[in-house]
Amino acid sequence: MASRSTQILEAAARVIARRGVRGLRVEELAEEAGVSTGLIYYHFKDRTGILRHTLEFINDRAERYTTAALDGETEPLSPREELDQVLLLELQDTPEVRENSTAWGELRASAVFDPVLREDLARATLVWVQEVAALLGQVQPLAPAATLAAAAERLTALLEGLSMRWLSGGLAVGHARTLMSEAVEVELTRLRQP
Amino acid sequence: MASRSTQILEAAARVIARRGVRGLRVEELAEEAGVSTGLIYYHFKDRTGILRHTLEFINDRAERYTTAALDGETEPLSPREELDQVLLLELQDTPEVRENSTAWGELRASAVFDPVLREDLARATLVWVQEVAALLGQVQPLAPAATLAAAAERLTALLEGLSMRWLSGGLAVGHARTLMSEAVEVELTRLRQP
Repeated sequence: MASRSTQILEAAARVIARRGVRGLRVEELAEEAGVSTGLIYYHFKDRTGILRHTLEFINDRAERYTTAALDGETEPLSPREELDQVLLLELQDTPEVRENSTAWGELRASAVFDPVLREDLARATLVWVQEVAALLGQVQPLAPAATLAAAAERLTALLEGLSMRWLSGGLAVGHARTLMSEAVEVELTRLRQP
Repeated sequence: MASRSTQILEAAARVIARRGVRGLRVEELAEEAGVSTGLIYYHFKDRTGILRHTLEFINDRAERYTTAALDGETEPLSPREELDQVLLLELQDTPEVRENSTAWGELRASAVFDPVLREDLARATLVWVQEVAALLGQVQPLAPAATLAAAAERLTALLEGLSMRWLSGGLAVGHARTLMSEAVEVELTRLRQP
């Protein structure tokens, strides 16, 4: 992707995390990105195009900060450590994770009122669930696929629920991480049972 | 509470569920409720007052439809059945539950951007967590209080996460109920372990 369009998407994620999807106006986005509105329309066609590409951009960025740490390790992580990291690195009080999680939660919340992003969100969620199910399967290779998928759906939905509580100021990030980490343990305990 | 103010709060929940908190204008609310804006200000002082009372109203209504079914039973439910009902009756595809859950999710999402409701939300969440922890404790009386509280925090956060996926069109309500019901089982399995 060309650097001008990345610059626009970075600005869109910032604006959404600051004021919500419903606060996103193309004029404001142009100002935030330091480009003309014409360039935004040229790259993304319309507001829907901006939102869909921003969702993809946010997803890619989350993928990066939840797995980049893994690639940087000198010792390869065990499947269990990798599973913990992929989930727990979504709960970090850094500006990047906070902004990214806020924008993701807001795109999800806006889809309740506006169907335009629903298909993209469902697809992104499915990819995420499958990724977590695959990691659970590496830890518990004998568990049936359907059981792994259900556990992954729960863990990712729980993460979204905890993330919303954290970002809306009702839950300390450290406690959210503890609850998430215990949830992984609880699901794995159940998967170990015949 | 006088019936005029109830009428206003019912209208506020409808407007929020239809268009979001950020779509709530006092003029529109007055029209929806069939009252004057003056009467709304008289009862609720300002927009913050409206939002805080609507949150309370939505909570009371959820309390009613998750436990009213229990009171109507001729045979008393077991603690386990009661626990299932309190959680699963939040995932029903009826106009009332859909409206109530949409408004709750939207109040939670708006608190990410606007601190005005944070304290009320945190308090309402705490009461809900304590209620679920008490039910878990009736099923597993030997489990330590902190363990019960953590399980209740996870189950209620998971319910919020699943509810958002359901309401944003990414998850069928029946599948959400299955995942929730299995989560209760998974947490209880863990609580049974010494």
